[in-house]
Formats: sequence, C-alpha cells, structure tokens
Amino acid sequence: MNVHWDEHQEPLGTALTLIHSRQSTTSRFLGDPGPDRAQVETILDAAGAAPDHRRLTPWRLVIVPMQKRHLLAEAFADALSERDPEATEAQRKEASEKAYRGPLLVAVIARLSPELGSVPTPERLLSAGCALQNMLLAAHAMGFGGGLLTGKSIYSARLKQFFQLGDTEQLLCFMAVGAVLRGKPTTTRPAMNDYTTTL
Amino acid sequence: MNVHWDEHQEPLGTALTLIHSRQSTTSRFLGDPGPDRAQVETILDAAGAAPDHRRLTPWRLVIVPMQKRHLLAEAFADALSERDPEATEAQRKEASEKAYRGPLLVAVIARLSPELGSVPTPERLLSAGCALQNMLLAAHAMGFGGGLLTGKSIYSARLKQFFQLGDTEQLLCFMAVGAVLRGKPTTTRPAMNDYTTTL
Repeated sequence: MNVHWDEHQEPLGTALTLIHSRQSTTSRFLGDPGPDRAQVETILDAAGAAPDHRRLTPWRLVIVPMQKRHLLAEAFADALSERDPEATEAQRKEASEKAYRGPLLVAVIARLSPELGSVPTPERLLSAGCALQNMLLAAHAMGFGGGLLTGKSIYSARLKQFFQLGDTEQLLCFMAVGAVLRGKPTTTRPAMNDYTTTL
Repeated sequence: MNVHWDEHQEPLGTALTLIHSRQSTTSRFLGDPGPDRAQVETILDAAGAAPDHRRLTPWRLVIVPMQKRHLLAEAFADALSERDPEATEAQRKEASEKAYRGPLLVAVIARLSPELGSVPTPERLLSAGCALQNMLLAAHAMGFGGGLLTGKSIYSARLKQFFQLGDTEQLLCFMAVGAVLRGKPTTTRPAMNDYTTTL
C-alpha cells in the first residue's frame, strides 16, 4: 500500500494521512527491494524519539541480516520442538520459514532490569510500542510496508539463547520491512467512539 | 515546543520532522487553550490506526473532563493513603494536584482478558504504545504539547475502582495534552547505534 500524499497538503494533513494510511503488511508479502543502509538508519533512528520515562531506553533492537537468517530459521524450528517435542520435520520447516521474512528484519527486545531505573514493566513496554510505531511510520513514509511477527516462539528458551538475552530481557516481536509485493484491502479501523468513554 | 515545519518539505521530510521534533512536555507546563472537541476527536481517532494483532482493540481510553477532575483528585489522594497510611494532608493535597494537569486528560487502559483473543499481554501493551504514539504525534502536528503521567497510584485499588476497571483491565498511564506554557531545552535522544546491534 502506498501513502496517497497530496503534495499541497498542509503539515497536519500530511501527519494524519501518514498515521491513517499506514497499515500492517503480512510479512509474507514483503520483499525486495528493502530499505538500503541509509534508509535502515533513518527508520531505526525514529525509535529513539519515543517517549522514555527517566531515559532508560528500556528496549533494544537487533538487526538479523540475510546471511544470518538460516541460523534464526534453525532457532525457530527448535523453538517449535521445545514446546512440541512431537513436531514433525514438515512442521519444523514451516516454523523456520518465518526467519526469511522481510528484507529488513529487526528483533525488538525489552530491557526490564530493575537496575536500569524505577520504571515499571508496563511503562517500558509502552515506550517500546511508541518506538515501534515511530519506525513503522518512518518506513511507511518512505513507501515501504511493515509488519510485526510474533508467536509462541518469542517466549522460547531457544530464541532467548539465540539472541543472548539477559535474564531481565524479553523478546517482544520482530519488525519486518520491505516492498509490498501484494496489497490487501484497506483495514477497517475502530473509530474513537468504539474505544473511548467520558467520565 | 513547536514543530518547525518547512512548508516546502516533501512528505518524508515532514514525517521525520514530526517524529523527531515531538518531545514530551511535563504535564505541569500544559495549559489552555487545549484542543477543542473536533481536535480531541482527531487526536483520539489516531489511536485507532495502531497495529492490533487479531483486532482485539486491547486498550481503551477514558476522557476525564474538567468538571470531574475534583473526583480524580480525591482518588489520587486516597491512592497515596492506600500505600502510605501515614501520608499527611499536605502530601495528599500534592498527590491530588496531578488530576488537574492538561486541558485534555485521558486515561489509557489495557484490556488483558484472555476472552478477547489469544494475544499475550506484552503484545497488547505494544499496541497500546503504538496507539499512544499516534495520539502524541497527532497532537504535536496540531501544535499542542503532550505528556504522559504515571506513578505508583496507577496500580492502586482506589484508581482501579475509580475507573471501574474490570479484573483483567489495567490502568497504564494518563495522557495530558494542551498548549505548552513553558518549553524546555531540546531532549538529547539516543541514536540508532546506542540501542541497535547486528547479529
């Protein structure tokens, strides 16, 4: 999906178009060309502008480059076997395919150590969400699609080991970014009144 | 702080300016004029464009209008007494003052019921963070300041009761929006290399 920019729009209109025209792309439908090195930096830099109470940077990012995807693929397969020792080779193969999604694939990791500062976990995850949205919006503004990958493997010991996470770190999701190979119908969004009440 | 828009900027530049020029304003320094009714709707509508796995809308918003702030003020004071039965009247008064912050004050509540669908809590909080960032960016694009209010009272039984939260709901923060009465020096942000590694 593309941003339908009106070049003569005023900045507020541009901001609202950016926010409302973004929608997640299933990572299966993301392909080449992905962002180049400078574009990756621009996208990931946007994360740093998220609200961050007491400036803990309570999350970090790990880029999984193409040449390391086969290792992540093995980890995904093992994560499946970890929670289902009966998993077949076909199921392991299917689980491993997620590793190849998106020309840009970034693991988002929460840093939950109390030693970082006295900010409770939910607030840290909110900051991670804000960082994620900034990155998705920046990617969208460049014309890329973006999608989040999650699933039970996120919580596996195998992936924790793969990313060498500390005891107080937690893998939250993967962000995949690339060219949109196949669009989908516009998502219906909830409107303000669906989720807002007034006291 | 204002957005330093360059009217001739292309859309990507506008998006990056929006993201990087936003910074939180201490809610003490937010005042009138706040957003009018239509602007409130525009800001809160932006939340609905957040990524939302399986479309649970795993969060909801409650506007606390000015005429109800004194009730929230009592709740803040009681929340303090709840965790510190020795709190003095002066301390209770100080705690209660947060209720008057921002012409627009919105409680952000996570909906964590397993019955909503099989999406784990961290993912739901990420969605709430994305929604929050969309709202802060929309408010910023209009020239308003925004800040998040949290603190121990967020987790009190008294506030849970005040907002009539369900057993599986959790108050995450308050978002305050209004005119910036007093700016502050530009925040130093972490840069991509401070929080990013490559596998």
